Amino acid sequence: MIMFNCDCAAGAHQSILEPLSGTNFEQSGVYGLDEHSDRARDYIRKACALGGEAGVHFLAGGTQANMTVIDALLRPYQGVVSASTGHINVHETGAVEATGRKVLPIPSADGKVAAAALESYCANHYADRDREHTVQPGMLYISHPTENGTCYSLAELKALRSVCDKYSVIMFLDCARLGYGLAVEGAPQLTDIARLCDVFYIGGTKVGAMFGEAVVITRPELNECFRYDIKRRGAMLAKGRMLGIQFEVLFEDGLYFEISRRAVALADRLRRGCAESGLRFLYDAPANQLFPIMPDALIKKLQEKYQFFAWERVSDTESAVRLSTSWCTPDENVDAFLSDLRANI
Amino acid sequence: MIMFNCDCAAGAHQSILEPLSGTNFEQSGVYGLDEHSDRARDYIRKACALGGEAGVHFLAGGTQANMTVIDALLRPYQGVVSASTGHINVHETGAVEATGRKVLPIPSADGKVAAAALESYCANHYADRDREHTVQPGMLYISHPTENGTCYSLAELKALRSVCDKYSVIMFLDCARLGYGLAVEGAPQLTDIARLCDVFYIGGTKVGAMFGEAVVITRPELNECFRYDIKRRGAMLAKGRMLGIQFEVLFEDGLYFEISRRAVALADRLRRGCAESGLRFLYDAPANQLFPIMPDALIKKLQEKYQFFAWERVSDTESAVRLSTSWCTPDENVDAFLSDLRANI
Amino acid sequence: MIMFNCDCAAGAHQSILEPLSGTNFEQSGVYGLDEHSDRARDYIRKACALGGEAGVHFLAGGTQANMTVIDALLRPYQGVVSASTGHINVHETGAVEATGRKVLPIPSADGKVAAAALESYCANHYADRDREHTVQPGMLYISHPTENGTCYSLAELKALRSVCDKYSVIMFLDCARLGYGLAVEGAPQLTDIARLCDVFYIGGTKVGAMFGEAVVITRPELNECFRYDIKRRGAMLAKGRMLGIQFEVLFEDGLYFEISRRAVALADRLRRGCAESGLRFLYDAPANQLFPIMPDALIKKLQEKYQFFAWERVSDTESAVRLSTSWCTPDENVDAFLSDLRANI
Amino acid sequence: MIMFNCDCAAGAHQSILEPLSGTNFEQSGVYGLDEHSDRARDYIRKACALGGEAGVHFLAGGTQANMTVIDALLRPYQGVVSASTGHINVHETGAVEATGRKVLPIPSADGKVAAAALESYCANHYADRDREHTVQPGMLYISHPTENGTCYSLAELKALRSVCDKYSVIMFLDCARLGYGLAVEGAPQLTDIARLCDVFYIGGTKVGAMFGEAVVITRPELNECFRYDIKRRGAMLAKGRMLGIQFEVLFEDGLYFEISRRAVALADRLRRGCAESGLRFLYDAPANQLFPIMPDALIKKLQEKYQFFAWERVSDTESAVRLSTSWCTPDENVDAFLSDLRANI
Repeated sequence: MIMFNCDCAAGAHQSILEPLSGTNFEQSGVYGLDEHSDRARDYIRKACALGGEAGVHFLAGGTQANMTVIDALLRPYQGVVSASTGHINVHETGAVEATGRKVLPIPSADGKVAAAALESYCANHYADRDREHTVQPGMLYISHPTENGTCYSLAELKALRSVCDKYSVIMFLDCARLGYGLAVEGAPQLTDIARLCDVFYIGGTKVGAMFGEAVVITRPELNECFRYDIKRRGAMLAKGRMLGIQFEVLFEDGLYFEISRRAVALADRLRRGCAESGLRFLYDAPANQLFPIMPDALIKKLQEKYQFFAWERVSDTESAVRLSTSWCTPDENVDAFLSDLRANI
Repeated sequence: MIMFNCDCAAGAHQSILEPLSGTNFEQSGVYGLDEHSDRARDYIRKACALGGEAGVHFLAGGTQANMTVIDALLRPYQGVVSASTGHINVHETGAVEATGRKVLPIPSADGKVAAAALESYCANHYADRDREHTVQPGMLYISHPTENGTCYSLAELKALRSVCDKYSVIMFLDCARLGYGLAVEGAPQLTDIARLCDVFYIGGTKVGAMFGEAVVITRPELNECFRYDIKRRGAMLAKGRMLGIQFEVLFEDGLYFEISRRAVALADRLRRGCAESGLRFLYDAPANQLFPIMPDALIKKLQEKYQFFAWERVSDTESAVRLSTSWCTPDENVDAFLSDLRANI
Repeated sequence: MIMFNCDCAAGAHQSILEPLSGTNFEQSGVYGLDEHSDRARDYIRKACALGGEAGVHFLAGGTQANMTVIDALLRPYQGVVSASTGHINVHETGAVEATGRKVLPIPSADGKVAAAALESYCANHYADRDREHTVQPGMLYISHPTENGTCYSLAELKALRSVCDKYSVIMFLDCARLGYGLAVEGAPQLTDIARLCDVFYIGGTKVGAMFGEAVVITRPELNECFRYDIKRRGAMLAKGRMLGIQFEVLFEDGLYFEISRRAVALADRLRRGCAESGLRFLYDAPANQLFPIMPDALIKKLQEKYQFFAWERVSDTESAVRLSTSWCTPDENVDAFLSDLRANI
Repeated sequence: MIMFNCDCAAGAHQSILEPLSGTNFEQSGVYGLDEHSDRARDYIRKACALGGEAGVHFLAGGTQANMTVIDALLRPYQGVVSASTGHINVHETGAVEATGRKVLPIPSADGKVAAAALESYCANHYADRDREHTVQPGMLYISHPTENGTCYSLAELKALRSVCDKYSVIMFLDCARLGYGLAVEGAPQLTDIARLCDVFYIGGTKVGAMFGEAVVITRPELNECFRYDIKRRGAMLAKGRMLGIQFEVLFEDGLYFEISRRAVALADRLRRGCAESGLRFLYDAPANQLFPIMPDALIKKLQEKYQFFAWERVSDTESAVRLSTSWCTPDENVDAFLSDLRANI
């Protein structure tokens, strides 16, 4: 079977495997206080155009990063606004609620939160004379790219930032697939994200690492005691350098960006191929995922050879499917798929 | 510097590094549902003499394992009894309390909880007419070996089990250093532990793995929905096979036991050498850690060349120190230390 | 101003005030373990046709009752299904999430959860191969009457019970306005509710009491340690007999039912009067609340003399309003309102 | 039986019962936003010599006040330092831990926390290179009078304040028995407490009220969103004026202080009588509680007629007992007890 179903099945990029072995007997500090992690922090701050006081912390996974950040930065009576489709709202077994915080969903068709919707949500809250009976919106959680493969434009992010400023809302980006988002033509760049967000994380697990997400806290006052929060959530890896080494490799010479561009180029080829075969798309998803709409018979035929998800039924005879490329998708898999698509349509 | 300060500085045993790389492009299931993890589960169940319905789950670290297990298995109004010195009580930044559960400390001089102390604690609770105003003891947490290097005898574990049965208390062993405990002559074996405990975890991080702890739930009814709990606590690794592979290697042919025995043999040599040099010990610690009492001048001299902790002051001129061996301590480090000890005493 | 805006402004029924004073220097037990509370429990069990092993607990308010019940009876990985309009989802400042549990909202137009919607929610959960990544539906929360004044029929409650049985879901009714619901012609009776639900609470605050809700747990195994949970949530009143006395008075001779019937009769008069004046209604609300749709000018005129809420805009020139009667609404207030309505329409 | 066992058995002072009835049909605001509550706030601020920006909030009970305050004012990674004997540590079924915060107990023989002990606790925390692995002390909880009947001197409170300032620790006084503490000769006065503490609560339940505690937040920045926290913890009473009325009566003309002085004068008589009969005391408890040490035979004899607790065994033949007076203890009960004591010793 050829896999297009997921961007986190393979292990790690080869450039990471070697130093993971090569440093095996180094006697470095534990709990993330080691030279590899320090270098990785510096590389990331530099790529973000952030100063030395910005926090960079390496955690093992996305749900862990989300729950740790959200719990740490909210006040008890505050909640986190999210698209109803947001990962924290639907696919983390209530990890955020397990910390005592409420997710405040805003209906979303394509995975994005519009600035106007956020503005309206906040305005309604503060207009309510009895607002103490409802959860105060204290943070905005958005994913970029979203769970639906869509991406925010720079203008959209700026508009959200502006609402966040108006209502003292912390702006948090879950960038589990950040590399792929950055590789989209015309998309906001890493320095934009770092400048606009209070906190975000740079996904490693889906973009070349064996595991690991780099949480970046751009406002120093939010960062001060964050290591306590990491430990408190069971998220402080004893041999923290295993995380540091991976991000050191990914960010030392731009490997993170390079492998992401390749994955998006392959997804672009798939998108063009689908469009040329006359397929429509469920979402305008420009990064490493695409959601073409196919007749059920075609889906069935293709799934004999390719693994991918039926995402959503769109008519009696058609469904949208999700295809994902990743840093390790071979070119020939794309060739094969497009060829089989053309043959069977 | 030669390190005796810690058993989790080095990376992973060489036998683990190779398959971590070798399986890099396998297309296995995610979230721990892969063949490596399944094989590791089988090896562990076999080593424990447990049937197929016992749960085996791979988590990334000890604090994560403790908080996930304790939260999952207690009822809200119940707390977990622990030695006052227990890791959950003093070194996890309140991770257990962060889940809403109270740690109920029992004073302990050597890190162990005596059956009589547990009996007394439970009896007092149930004798109280107003017991609803206090937290019900619902779980016993003990570490084996303890944070003070001491180990439970089989008789002690059986006595604790008996109190647990009497008061419907879940018996949970934090075995972050399990291998070293098993290697002690006359110590309870893995099958004893599996038979006596409701749940325990087999430490990987300190015993040859890069990271990872294997939580074993011996009572199927406690295991049923534990994967939900893992996800809810941010503890489900996307590429879960990275954990599975490590335990597969450690338990396929007894590597876990073998490397532990070697570490304890080295600690035995250190213990004998210290005793022959006339040193006393703070605790009767028979596994991979020892706590000799040294004059301050000697400590200062030895710390020029060796890294180890001053653990506790015992008189105006002496302190107990902690020396740890591990699976990767070279023989010559022990030789050097003993020689320098003899030369400076 | 004449109030139709709320059913909890006045103090307590006169029959309650006297014994609250009269028993002032009794030396009864504290924390709810007193003779008044015991008698109140017996009266309630009798009214419910429940045996002595059913739990009856007196708490101070609705949010407190909801959060204590939901936290106590769910497993950590479970959440509580609610209408999106449910009080716990929108008007309790995240009290349920503060206990670590997620509210799982089902869209609702009229405040009710349909059995088919619950069935579909549960079926989807268990059909998901990755269901461990989502919160398991462990409880159904419905309010009766709902926040929109609507009421469940006996058939609807039975249909929900049947889905709850199928998926092992605990059925919990928030009956803050129970008396008014019971007074509706043809409505399910208290014995029906007690037979069908695992747990519910009988609202006192809105139905004659100064404060207080009686939580009834019909399944003894859910009740066993509930007093621990009450204390743990700060909900155990020291002088618990103050709650007991109120429910003793309300349930000794049927006062609770009698004052509720009167309130609903007054609401019926309001409903008839509105209908006769040609007004339509937003919801089919048969108990002590009604939601007539009025032209904005009429609303403005009436609000000069009467307090009531504009509930929801329904067109450019009309809004639905909410009118509430209660146990202490004077007959003449209804007369006056209807007369002014006729005069101004 | 004559009761000396408890200071919260009787209902409310007569002056409170009348207005509770007399205001029954007032149409005041709900949720604590009414004129009675506002007047009570003003009276309390005046008695505390606090300005209008200080927060005053009425809650139903002590555990509820403790858990709401502690959760609201701490950051997630912070805990609350308490005497090991503190009510939050031993008698609230883990209500504080249920909010995710850890109680950090300091051993105490007499119920008090010494400034030196707090200083040492904080100094040790910040001296620890790995302090992120332990809970940061963020609040000091002390009770005044303590659970052991002891009271802080003004010098002791000032010394604690000074340590709190040094380490940015919030100083919180649980004053469930405040009136009795204020009535002790030479004790810190209410203005001292208000000046020295960041937050404290004035106990009503044990000092004349039917129920209710007045939380006073002296630092406005801590008060800003506290009403959200109250609602979130299920602690916002619908008919909040029932609490307001009680504190209005207690603080309008000094009734709170007057009834407390009387109770302490009665306790003084009991203390003198015990001392004259040759009894020693377990603690130096100067307020409304005393802990005389009696031969077991005497205890048994007195308990035939009087209700009081055996508190702690002090020798093979003697125990300390706890005697409590309260605002409603009749003079003749004290006369009778002293007479029976003299007759039986």
